Order: sequence, then structure tokens, then C-alpha cells
Amino acid sequence: MDRRIPIEVSARHVHLSQNDLEVLFGKGYKLKKLRNLVQPKEFAAKETLDIQVSSRKISNIRIIGPVREKTQVELSHTDGVFLRIDLPVRESEDLKETPGAILISRKGRIKIKKGVINAWRHIHCSPKEAKKLGFKNGMSVSVKTKGTCSITFHNVKVQVDKNYRLYMHLDTDEGNAACMVKKGQGYLVTIV
Amino acid sequence: MDRRIPIEVSARHVHLSQNDLEVLFGKGYKLKKLRNLVQPKEFAAKETLDIQVSSRKISNIRIIGPVREKTQVELSHTDGVFLRIDLPVRESEDLKETPGAILISRKGRIKIKKGVINAWRHIHCSPKEAKKLGFKNGMSVSVKTKGTCSITFHNVKVQVDKNYRLYMHLDTDEGNAACMVKKGQGYLVTIV
Repeated sequence: MDRRIPIEVSARHVHLSQNDLEVLFGKGYKLKKLRNLVQPKEFAAKETLDIQVSSRKISNIRIIGPVREKTQVELSHTDGVFLRIDLPVRESEDLKETPGAILISRKGRIKIKKGVINAWRHIHCSPKEAKKLGFKNGMSVSVKTKGTCSITFHNVKVQVDKNYRLYMHLDTDEGNAACMVKKGQGYLVTIV
Repeated sequence: MDRRIPIEVSARHVHLSQNDLEVLFGKGYKLKKLRNLVQPKEFAAKETLDIQVSSRKISNIRIIGPVREKTQVELSHTDGVFLRIDLPVRESEDLKETPGAILISRKGRIKIKKGVINAWRHIHCSPKEAKKLGFKNGMSVSVKTKGTCSITFHNVKVQVDKNYRLYMHLDTDEGNAACMVKKGQGYLVTIV
């Protein structure tokens, strides 16, 4: 079996609801595409936001389109330390009892009561890829990287969807810990 | 066998040679102790430095005493990305062909030609602790952490010295990737 899992390192980013997008950029606003992402239909938008928590601010956070049902800010723990928030590790859209923040665009601002998370490390894949790898949606697997900074990431959540392509997503702390810049390669391992 | 390995997360820090210390703080200068570290004789000094590479600067980096033979700056890859340097992963004092920087104190500055590294993840231990764990100086082992962000760190270098106490050192990227703040617990694992 081919146990290779391509890895992408995700920089901090924001997903916006249509409502929050309109508060920040104006009624009926549509995100402008900067470039397509690996996952079909997903794109990096030209628009960025600043995020502020108390007196701390991180600027120029990329918005990822298209809009979603819920606004969600995905940061690394390094960012969480900087913003002085206890950043919970969550799967996408599981936003109950997560910290809020102020989002600031070039045209406006909005206070979100929740939605700031560290994304649970995960693998996207299609049903066909899942079948080949023995994956079921929602299961946890372990993926090892090679090299000087070799790491095995455990508790990697599998997300199966017909629109997905096989890719593991790490945040920048995880990527840096594995000495991986932007992209890399992992190997599915069996933990005995 | 007790396979527990206590872990400390090391923030960015600087070790100085006596010569560089005197250039930065004055002839015959002695570092002032802020607090003892876990490893015997080592201490965090009251003094800090700024490090500058081209136009990028990181401020208030703690100096660790006592002075050493060679000046060495230990940063995370997050710091390396910020400073726009390709940070090599090195064992302590292996500084050949590593990047330089400008070190700035409240009293002076010095340009170092090399010495900026990302510290190779490692375990300190005494000969007695090494014997219990089956360690030999210089060998590489794997250490697993628990919890949501569970990680196994591979290529962890064992450093045996009569002055050491059993502790694994991670940098802040590695600590953050394992959702570990300052201190934690690892477990020696056997990779088959």
C-alpha cells in the first residue's frame, strides 16, 4: 500500500460568514480570488483582516473563500501566546466556548463572540482515497515525517468528502517543529 | 522500566563567550543571575539582548549563563522565518556555516559571523539516569507526548554528563505543536 500523505502547512487564516463579510466590506460584497487552494472550490482571497484581542493585534490575516456558515479564525499556538489567549484545539465549526476577537478590515470592524481556534490537525481525502488507505470519516490516524526534525503526528482526524483531495494540514507551529516549509511529505504509520 | 521523560520548552536565548560579553557590557563584566535553571550551574541572566538580521529585529532575548567558549543564539523556526534566515538545526557548539547576526545590548553591539541556530532536540541526563534508561551519549531516541496534540519526537539526541539532570528540551515551535506550555511530560517509545 502507498502510505504517502502529502502535507500542506496552513498559515493563519479566516473563514467568514456572508453576514460578517458584509459588515466588514459592505452589503452584497463578494471575495476576490487571489489563487485557488488545493482543496477544490477553496481559494485564498485578495482581502485580509487584522485581528485584535485586548491591546494585541495580528495584521494581514488572509481570508479563505468561499464564505461559510460560521466565521472562524484559525491561528497557531504561537499566535495564541502573542494574543494572550488560551487557544482551544478544535475541529472546523466546533466553536462552542471558543474565544472571540475584533476583526478589522479596511472598511469596518466586527466583534465576534467566539470562533478563534487552533485547527485540529487533519487529513482531507475523497471517498476513493479513503478506501485505498483504509480510512473512515472521523477516525484518527498517525502520520510520520522524515528528516532531522522527524515527527510522528498522532490524533490526525480524517475528513472524507467527495470534494476533497488527499492532503494533511498542519499549522505553522507543527510545520516548523517538523522543519517543513509550506509543503512536505508524511507517511501513514501504524501505532502498536 | 519507568519511561517518563520530563520536558522543558526553551524560549529563544543566547549563550555568550566572555569576550563577546565584555564587548556588549564592558570589560570584566559578570552576568547577574535572575534565576537558576534545572540543569545545575546554568542560570537565566537578568541581562537580555536584541538580535538584528538585515532590517528585522527580535528584542529582549534572555542571556543564559555562565559564559561559554562560543557565542550561540538559539531560535525557533518561527523566529527564523521572521528574520528571513534559513535556520540550521544544530547540536550545541556545532556552529560551522551557520548564519551570523548583530547582537545589541543596552551598552553596545557586536556583529557575530556565525552562531545562530535552531537547537537539535535533545535530552540531558546523568550517567546514572542514562544507565537506567539504556541511553548512551550521542544516541538518538524517540519521545512521545500525550493529549489532543500528541506527538512523537524522533531523532532526540541524548547528552550524558555528570552535571546533567534528566530533562528533554524542545523549542517553542515543538512545544506549541504538542500543545505544551513551558513544561510537560514525555514517554520514551521504541520504534519498530
